[in-house]
Amino acid sequence: MGNIDPWGSKEVVIDENLIKKFGLTKFSDSDRKKFNHYLFKRKIILAHRDFNKISDCLSGKKQFIQLTGIASSGLLHLGHKVDIDIFLYFKKLGAKSYFVVSDIDAYLSRPDSKIPSLEKAKEFAINNIAHLLALGLNKKDIYLQSKKEPRYYEFAFEISKKITENTFRAIYGHLDLGKLSANLLQYADILHPQLKEFNKPMPSITGIGIEQDPHARACRDIARRLPYKLQLPSFIYFSHQSALQLGKKMSASEPDSAIFLDDNKEDIKRKINKAYSGGRESLKEHKKLGGIPENDKAFEILLYHHPNSNFIQKVHDQYKNGKLSTGELKSICKEFLIEMLSKHQRKLKRTEKIAEKIVLI
Amino acid sequence: MGNIDPWGSKEVVIDENLIKKFGLTKFSDSDRKKFNHYLFKRKIILAHRDFNKISDCLSGKKQFIQLTGIASSGLLHLGHKVDIDIFLYFKKLGAKSYFVVSDIDAYLSRPDSKIPSLEKAKEFAINNIAHLLALGLNKKDIYLQSKKEPRYYEFAFEISKKITENTFRAIYGHLDLGKLSANLLQYADILHPQLKEFNKPMPSITGIGIEQDPHARACRDIARRLPYKLQLPSFIYFSHQSALQLGKKMSASEPDSAIFLDDNKEDIKRKINKAYSGGRESLKEHKKLGGIPENDKAFEILLYHHPNSNFIQKVHDQYKNGKLSTGELKSICKEFLIEMLSKHQRKLKRTEKIAEKIVLI
Repeated sequence: MGNIDPWGSKEVVIDENLIKKFGLTKFSDSDRKKFNHYLFKRKIILAHRDFNKISDCLSGKKQFIQLTGIASSGLLHLGHKVDIDIFLYFKKLGAKSYFVVSDIDAYLSRPDSKIPSLEKAKEFAINNIAHLLALGLNKKDIYLQSKKEPRYYEFAFEISKKITENTFRAIYGHLDLGKLSANLLQYADILHPQLKEFNKPMPSITGIGIEQDPHARACRDIARRLPYKLQLPSFIYFSHQSALQLGKKMSASEPDSAIFLDDNKEDIKRKINKAYSGGRESLKEHKKLGGIPENDKAFEILLYHHPNSNFIQKVHDQYKNGKLSTGELKSICKEFLIEMLSKHQRKLKRTEKIAEKIVLI
Repeated sequence: MGNIDPWGSKEVVIDENLIKKFGLTKFSDSDRKKFNHYLFKRKIILAHRDFNKISDCLSGKKQFIQLTGIASSGLLHLGHKVDIDIFLYFKKLGAKSYFVVSDIDAYLSRPDSKIPSLEKAKEFAINNIAHLLALGLNKKDIYLQSKKEPRYYEFAFEISKKITENTFRAIYGHLDLGKLSANLLQYADILHPQLKEFNKPMPSITGIGIEQDPHARACRDIARRLPYKLQLPSFIYFSHQSALQLGKKMSASEPDSAIFLDDNKEDIKRKINKAYSGGRESLKEHKKLGGIPENDKAFEILLYHHPNSNFIQKVHDQYKNGKLSTGELKSICKEFLIEMLSKHQRKLKRTEKIAEKIVLI
């Protein structure tokens, strides 16, 4: 466990071993067909812990909670968009939906060199919330961590009595007190909607990266120790979209590693042109051997974000058999991103005003 | 420092060495005359850290803050009354006054065997607040820790980034995560009235037992590290009233160690009759040698609570020269307590209703 860092930005390769090691369950092909969202179909959501509870709720039309969040420690990139897409999907399926924008967490868990003050985290929160609203979230779906009911904070403090120093150190390998507090808030985020002051105990689902599973297990352990008869929260695990360069993870702290939701036409063109590709040394060789879509960052963007699975299949096959060149694939990707993001960005002017009100008033 | 336990109930003997070791300043006789309260005069408040800042405010009629609190982990006893008396005194002198009833702290810092739930801490909070109101505090002077503005909790979490594991361990000798959280809240209690959301940076005063000085120093250190230009808080140090038995400290967790504000006539009589005395083996010897008021628990109660210093001086002298017997001294004490507490308790019926509203609604 010690070599998986929940705050790091190293690429985490999700393989059968990791799923087995953490005791997760892979989604089967028949599971995947039940959920009409491409993130399941394309194996981007690939494993879970206790998802059957949520399936039961869905088939029995019973209430369940979803909680997702982002720490407002930077600008949003395409990697965040995946979390937001699945949030909107479960909301459509009827989940009681909570999206936390974690400004306190962002300040506490990041070094001062990155987030020097709560004020800075709130600046990012305005930006992040504006994007969430533009992507289709409702004002009521979102809460800012620093503007909750007192019961929420009391609950976060209450949790501190339910974990020991040694447990924390075993999970995280350190005992940074700011990060400890950030974790208390994260546990409270996931569990508080089940309290009687908010709803009642019921199944809940949270999507996370597989490297955050230590949090998930700690959170379930805490749920067991609290006196509120909480249901153990369920989790689904995403495969992270990788960086535009080879062997990295998209990260808000490395601007060139990702396409950001604020990027303009020129940014997109430049970044995709420079992105690592699965093409061959020469066009001649490419036509002969075919490209490698699995290694191609432009293809990966389509895989994670383009809504049309048939189209992606076609692009995949044509690239693989060499009919589609790297330049052509990049053009498809750029065109797709420019259309999607410019449409998205047109909404920001309106949503920024709402976001400012949420954070500042 | 390691052998002084801020949560313990061992008697702490305040001597010159401790004052020197902690770097405190003793109140001089001329200081003492400036403050027209018997707790100064009788050397019950005996040392301070930076009290000159408060003196300056008083002489220049400048604003200052006072913050005092109790953890709602049990019933209030005469030891608590001293804190409340001095709180009322500084309030009369014009301090912006904050009295925190710490329910979250009470739950987090006590073992489950004593406070098994937040609910239990809130039960005690109702009782404690009813007494505070009956003693003359105003509803507006008091806040319940679990019912504050979000900024207060955010601030408590913010503080966690300003201390390290090693600092905490050096001060407290352990790293119990519940107690750590309780400390974050205590720091926030003392410092938050200086934030712009509540007032502005200005001198503040808090009365504590000398064994809590590690908290005080940590709190001042944190004030320095925060980005709000806070004034370092000042502290005054009380000598704790001792238990009714020899060599202990009054403690809410040991019912026979103290007179509680809820004690009735019979409780008082029984406890004072059994209390350790400074009398001699026989009445004959007592008349010959005189009593030892310094060792007498009935005398100590008068010293800490009877408003008339001349009367106390008279009792002291007569006991010391043997004119007053132990039985007579105990009668004086019982009479005083029964009158004071029955008058106090008559007010509780009304204040309990207000207290319930503060805690439960």
